[in-house]
Amino acid sequence: MDPKTRGDASTRTTSETISKKSRRGFLKQGAALVTGAASAGLAQGADSTTAAQALAGQPWERIYGAPFTGYGQPSRFEQPVMRHIGRPYGDLAPGTGAALAPIEALEGIITPSGLHNIRSHSGSPDIDPKEHLLLLHGLVQRPLRFSMEALSSYPMTSRIHFLECSGNSNRALAPQPAQVPAGAMHGNIACSEWTGIPLRLLLEEAGLRPEAKWLLAEGADSAHMSRSIPVEKALDDALIALYQNGERLRPEQGYPVRLLLPGWEGNMSVKWLRRLKATEEPTHTKDETSKYTDLQPDGRALQFTFEMGVKSVITKPSSTMKLPRTGFYEISGIAWSGAGRIRRVEVSADGGVTWADAALTGEERPKALVRFRLPWEWTGREALLQSRATDEKGQVQPTRKAWLAQYSPGNIYHNHSIVSWAVGADGSVKNVYV
Amino acid sequence: MDPKTRGDASTRTTSETISKKSRRGFLKQGAALVTGAASAGLAQGADSTTAAQALAGQPWERIYGAPFTGYGQPSRFEQPVMRHIGRPYGDLAPGTGAALAPIEALEGIITPSGLHNIRSHSGSPDIDPKEHLLLLHGLVQRPLRFSMEALSSYPMTSRIHFLECSGNSNRALAPQPAQVPAGAMHGNIACSEWTGIPLRLLLEEAGLRPEAKWLLAEGADSAHMSRSIPVEKALDDALIALYQNGERLRPEQGYPVRLLLPGWEGNMSVKWLRRLKATEEPTHTKDETSKYTDLQPDGRALQFTFEMGVKSVITKPSSTMKLPRTGFYEISGIAWSGAGRIRRVEVSADGGVTWADAALTGEERPKALVRFRLPWEWTGREALLQSRATDEKGQVQPTRKAWLAQYSPGNIYHNHSIVSWAVGADGSVKNVYV
Repeated sequence: MDPKTRGDASTRTTSETISKKSRRGFLKQGAALVTGAASAGLAQGADSTTAAQALAGQPWERIYGAPFTGYGQPSRFEQPVMRHIGRPYGDLAPGTGAALAPIEALEGIITPSGLHNIRSHSGSPDIDPKEHLLLLHGLVQRPLRFSMEALSSYPMTSRIHFLECSGNSNRALAPQPAQVPAGAMHGNIACSEWTGIPLRLLLEEAGLRPEAKWLLAEGADSAHMSRSIPVEKALDDALIALYQNGERLRPEQGYPVRLLLPGWEGNMSVKWLRRLKATEEPTHTKDETSKYTDLQPDGRALQFTFEMGVKSVITKPSSTMKLPRTGFYEISGIAWSGAGRIRRVEVSADGGVTWADAALTGEERPKALVRFRLPWEWTGREALLQSRATDEKGQVQPTRKAWLAQYSPGNIYHNHSIVSWAVGADGSVKNVYV
Repeated sequence: MDPKTRGDASTRTTSETISKKSRRGFLKQGAALVTGAASAGLAQGADSTTAAQALAGQPWERIYGAPFTGYGQPSRFEQPVMRHIGRPYGDLAPGTGAALAPIEALEGIITPSGLHNIRSHSGSPDIDPKEHLLLLHGLVQRPLRFSMEALSSYPMTSRIHFLECSGNSNRALAPQPAQVPAGAMHGNIACSEWTGIPLRLLLEEAGLRPEAKWLLAEGADSAHMSRSIPVEKALDDALIALYQNGERLRPEQGYPVRLLLPGWEGNMSVKWLRRLKATEEPTHTKDETSKYTDLQPDGRALQFTFEMGVKSVITKPSSTMKLPRTGFYEISGIAWSGAGRIRRVEVSADGGVTWADAALTGEERPKALVRFRLPWEWTGREALLQSRATDEKGQVQPTRKAWLAQYSPGNIYHNHSIVSWAVGADGSVKNVYV
């Protein structure tokens, strides 16, 4: 379907369970009629009495508010919205593991930097940007060392891209479906506007030698997280990123400088980047041999699955939520593909028997989150909500069963299969495997 | 010029002072050659000794890093990057005035929410979203009251828009040019991804009566900031915004709900929105009579200048910065127009004698910031940097003189004139009036 022919979601639904009349349906619920003011012939005079009652005023309207701050924070009423932290070694290694974005509480496609997902191997180093250097060496004509000040005068570009850990959604591979918020399973993903220098420019400056086919990228964390990057990617859309959502990178995202490989598994976008070494062959570091490999059905480990698969997840409603009443809702979620643009997201409320096209926001951008939305009427019966994304290469998000069949049961990476949320007759939303 | 025909900035420069060769120029500076490794015939073995020296390692590479946090913050080394706070009444009213975004330190087009500009009249109220209600009344069929929970199930949309205070750049109207960072003069502007409910939907639910031509929008701050909004704008692209850059609105930007009128002067996007009242005529509140009017040459005050003018400002380099050396730099800045999309930004390094087209990022979005960039060689001579934006309506950013001629000298709103930065022979950058 041509994206340009898509109009308002409410005119395009085909599924029996997703009403064509839902936009009008929204207009009959939710808001309270102002007491005593419901008559159609209401005059402005009569109304102002009513308004006066409704506008009696809250305590905060009667006191002077908070002063200006140099750097603002969320409302104290939003404190429960925080990253879902997973620390497999507990207090022994409090910065080893992952902190997942609370996607169930977020909207749009930009992830606030304070809630960006984190994957780190030895915590977040406290780097002084005046002391940090980036070395570019190996099979190059001119080995170079860049201070952050030197990098700051190079030409930059800004692009919105997602970053997903290849281990995202591995919690959804547990034997029993976890009853936790969507972000605690599928939130190892975030999307930011990144600003940095095309890596290509720095490689041109150093002069790659013809035999250079790979780059070893190494971080300045104490784990010296390291991955081998094909030169083709480095010369394509790779960035040496300095800014995230307008300001300098956050410490957990690689301050003062990181590699950014759009669409590829997150750990390859090496944070706290301290060197790039041009080599003939991949370096086969511990991070690409002992981890970040995909267990095949025959027991062998497949290395170098770079591109993240086409994927989507419904964030509202989602696991652990409860619908307060029957009636109209908006189903909202995120979709993305490492291969490029999202072309289509379909939503089903009957476990995949029928599907309806959702409205998309941001689908013009490659390798970025897309927000999808679809109005939906919950009649009080059980429902099974699913979303299915298709990208511009025609790749379709697989079912859970089809995805599982590709791997050994021990594989924990690259799960991009369809997510299912069951809505019970009581409105409760549960994570289920179907 | 057709935006699609524009390629890399370095191929499009026409100004004598902005070199066509600048991209190549970048490739001869800035980075340090790794000591002893500059010979072209460098073998990998010889290089590893050098690399070992360069990679001796910093203290943070030898200790375990910081643990995960639920909500992250910038690096401690970035603490100087904060809003520029202007409090005309000092400690008597510490939340009255404005806090301006440090645009001189930002990149891309998204403003981090912690650094979003603020204009508030009586501080920032601490609103409990469970108690806050939005009333929709006046000339409507069905006066309605919305809890935040009720609003959360309405259909939403996400869009990237700027918000500029109509008083932005009034400091640049002082008799003498202030020598302060660019943000302290021109930073009453920010750009976010906003998510909310099209106001049109709520007005349909309430049923606007035919005689309703205006909406009074009123905030729940103790100043009860109030503006009159034409119904046409409310039915066009106005949002009832609940989210900013993915998370719920920040307190200073209207938590839990604000009006958003894309492209119009910021104060009309009433924060902490508590009611909308449909009326036949504008209400002529204190906020649209005693303030936010434009003094005309004949001494009369013009009300209701809604749309923000086409504008741009170079943020790098800018006032109070110092170029550390001669050579190649990237000129970077922001442009925007309340009338729609930015079509073109030209940059001059000789005070407007010659101009070169800058490369644009984000120009596909209406009423949003655009980032412009242009490579530039500073030869060590005095230079006068200016930028000039043109929008899709063909409106061109005026010179300072042309803009001033439209108003009485006392006017402090809607200054969208060209900004000039003088680069001295010593590399210092100064704010000048030309």
